[in-house]
Amino acid sequence: MTNPVLVEVIRGGMVESRHRGAVAVVDTAGAAVLALGDVAQPVFPRSAIKALQAMPLVESGAADRYGLSDDELALACASHGGEPAHVDGVARMLAKAGLDPTALRCGAHWPLSQPAAFALAQKTGAPSALHNNCSGKHAGFLCLACAMGVDHADYWRPEHEVQREVRAVLENLSGAALERPAIDGCSVPTWPIPLQNLAQAFARFGTGSGLLPARARAAARLREVCAQNPWYVAGTGRFCTEVTKLLGARVFVKTGAEGMFCGALPDLGLGIAIKCDDGAGRASEAIMAAVIARFVPLAEGERPALSRFRAPTLRNWNGFEVGMLRVTEALG
Amino acid sequence: MTNPVLVEVIRGGMVESRHRGAVAVVDTAGAAVLALGDVAQPVFPRSAIKALQAMPLVESGAADRYGLSDDELALACASHGGEPAHVDGVARMLAKAGLDPTALRCGAHWPLSQPAAFALAQKTGAPSALHNNCSGKHAGFLCLACAMGVDHADYWRPEHEVQREVRAVLENLSGAALERPAIDGCSVPTWPIPLQNLAQAFARFGTGSGLLPARARAAARLREVCAQNPWYVAGTGRFCTEVTKLLGARVFVKTGAEGMFCGALPDLGLGIAIKCDDGAGRASEAIMAAVIARFVPLAEGERPALSRFRAPTLRNWNGFEVGMLRVTEALG
Repeated sequence: MTNPVLVEVIRGGMVESRHRGAVAVVDTAGAAVLALGDVAQPVFPRSAIKALQAMPLVESGAADRYGLSDDELALACASHGGEPAHVDGVARMLAKAGLDPTALRCGAHWPLSQPAAFALAQKTGAPSALHNNCSGKHAGFLCLACAMGVDHADYWRPEHEVQREVRAVLENLSGAALERPAIDGCSVPTWPIPLQNLAQAFARFGTGSGLLPARARAAARLREVCAQNPWYVAGTGRFCTEVTKLLGARVFVKTGAEGMFCGALPDLGLGIAIKCDDGAGRASEAIMAAVIARFVPLAEGERPALSRFRAPTLRNWNGFEVGMLRVTEALG
Repeated sequence: MTNPVLVEVIRGGMVESRHRGAVAVVDTAGAAVLALGDVAQPVFPRSAIKALQAMPLVESGAADRYGLSDDELALACASHGGEPAHVDGVARMLAKAGLDPTALRCGAHWPLSQPAAFALAQKTGAPSALHNNCSGKHAGFLCLACAMGVDHADYWRPEHEVQREVRAVLENLSGAALERPAIDGCSVPTWPIPLQNLAQAFARFGTGSGLLPARARAAARLREVCAQNPWYVAGTGRFCTEVTKLLGARVFVKTGAEGMFCGALPDLGLGIAIKCDDGAGRASEAIMAAVIARFVPLAEGERPALSRFRAPTLRNWNGFEVGMLRVTEALG
C-alpha cells in the first residue's frame, strides 16, 4: 500500500517536495476515528513513547521513593534540548537515586539547542551523556532499577528487568505483542508496533480507560507534569513545548525520530499516532498540528497560533518569504 | 505518477523509513540511459547547478580579468562548509573585484561545518554572509557584474544582467525554456527545470558537446578546478569532496537543497539529475553513489570506498551499529 501525500513543501507557488505518511486516530476501544494510509504497518515508535516508557517509574512508586519533582518527571518523558536547566535536572534525578552521570548509557551528543551547544563548546569543548536528549528517560530507568534493587549496569538491555517492565506496559496499553526489538539511538530497545495500536496506547494513556487504577493514576500524573512543565519535555521554541503551552492539558504531544509523532486528546478520548514515511520531522509536526486543528475545539486566537505549526512559512537567509508547508486535503 | 522507492532506511532488519524519487541519466543527445520515476517533472535545481551558474563568470573573461585562482573558481561552484579557508577565499575573490563582504546579498548563516560553527561562535558570536555556503557563488556573480561594468547592487534579482546571463546558459545547456523563478535560500532565482533536461545540461557540461567553443572551454575549466580542489566545493568529510577525491575528474558531482543532486560522467558522456521527493539529502547521496557504482568502471578498492556512501552504516550515540541505508532494486 502506498501511503498518501500528507504534506507538500511549496516554493514560489510550485510543489518542491512532498511527504507521504500514515495517521491513526482511535478511541479508547481502538476504533478508528481517522485512518490515513497503512495504519496496520509496524513502526518503530522511537522517542514518541517516552511518556509510556516512564510509566513503570511512577507506577512502581520509584518516583515517589526518590522524591522526583514534577519537572524531573517531565524530563523522564522528554527529548530535551540539553539546555542548562535540563542538564541540571537530570543530574539531580541521578543524585536522588545515589548515582552520578557515569551510570548513564545513552551516549553523548551535542545539545539539540544550538545556543546550548555553542555555550557548551565554549565551556568544555565536548558534550556528555547528560546532554543527550534522552538522558532524562535514562535517569528515570536508573531510578527504577535502583528502587527495584536490581543491578543497574545493564538497564538498557531488552532482557533487563527495567526494559521488561517497560515492555509489559507497552503491551498492555497498545494491545500488541512486542517482539524483535531494534536498537534506538540511545541504545534502549525500540519495538515495532502497528501504528493503530500505538494510537490506542495513547487513547488509554490519555484517559486511563481500560487500565488498572495504579496504572491509570501513573498516566494521569505524567500527563499532568508534562502539561505543567512543557519546557522540560522539549525546550525553547520546540513544537512539543509550544503546542503544550498553547493548549495545556487538552493535548499531549510527543515527537520521535524518523518522522514519528504520538499524542492524546484526553477530553475527546482519542489517541494519535503519526509516521511520516521518509522520517521528516517537519512533516510530522505539520501533520500533528493539522490533526489537533481538526479535532480539538479551539478558542479564538488558538487557531492562528496553531497555524504557525500547521502551515509554517518558509523564509530564506535574508528573511524573504520563499514558500510554506501545506497539509493536503487528505488531512482535511 | 508515483515515483518509486529508491532508498530504504533499515533498523534492526526492518524498513523504518523510505525515500521515493526520480533519476534521469542521459547522453549528450538527451537520450535516456536510465529513467526512474517522473523525469519530465520540473524541479528546482537549487545549489546542484552552481557550476552552471558559474559558467558566465569564466566564459565572459571576468575570472581571468580578476585573476581568480583555481580554488577561488571552485568556491564559485561550491556549497562550502564555512571553514576558515573557504571564508578567506571568498573574501579574496571580492577584494580582487574591488569589493568587500558588504556587497554580498546571500544572507548570513552559521557554517555548515560544526567545528567551524563552534569556533566562530567562540570568536565572534555571529556568522556573516561570508559563512553562507553560497558566498562563493555570490562572489562570482559580483565579479561578473563588475567585469560587465553594471551596477552590482541588485545582482541577485532575476532581471539583473548577471542573472540574465546565467539564465541564458541554463537554457542553452538544458534545452528548456526557463520561466517563473522561485527564490532560492540565498535569494537568487531558482528556475524550475524538468529533471531530464537538467541531466542533459550536465551531459553537455561534462563533455562540451553541442556547445560553442568558448562555452565548452569554460565548462572544461570549471570541471577541472572542481576535480583538483574538491575541498573547496564542499568541505571536510562531505560527500562531494570525498567522492571527488576518490574518483577525480571521472565524475563531477554537486548536491543541492531539498534532495537534489546533479552530476556528470565525462568519460561516458553522461549527465545525471536526481530529485528525492521528500527533500532528504541522505537519500540523494545514496542514490548518486549508486548511479556512479552502476555506470563508472571502478578499480579495486574504489567500490568498497564508494559503498560507504551507497550503503552507509547507521550507528547510534554509543557507536552501536543500528541499521543502514539500502538502495532498492530499482537502482540496480
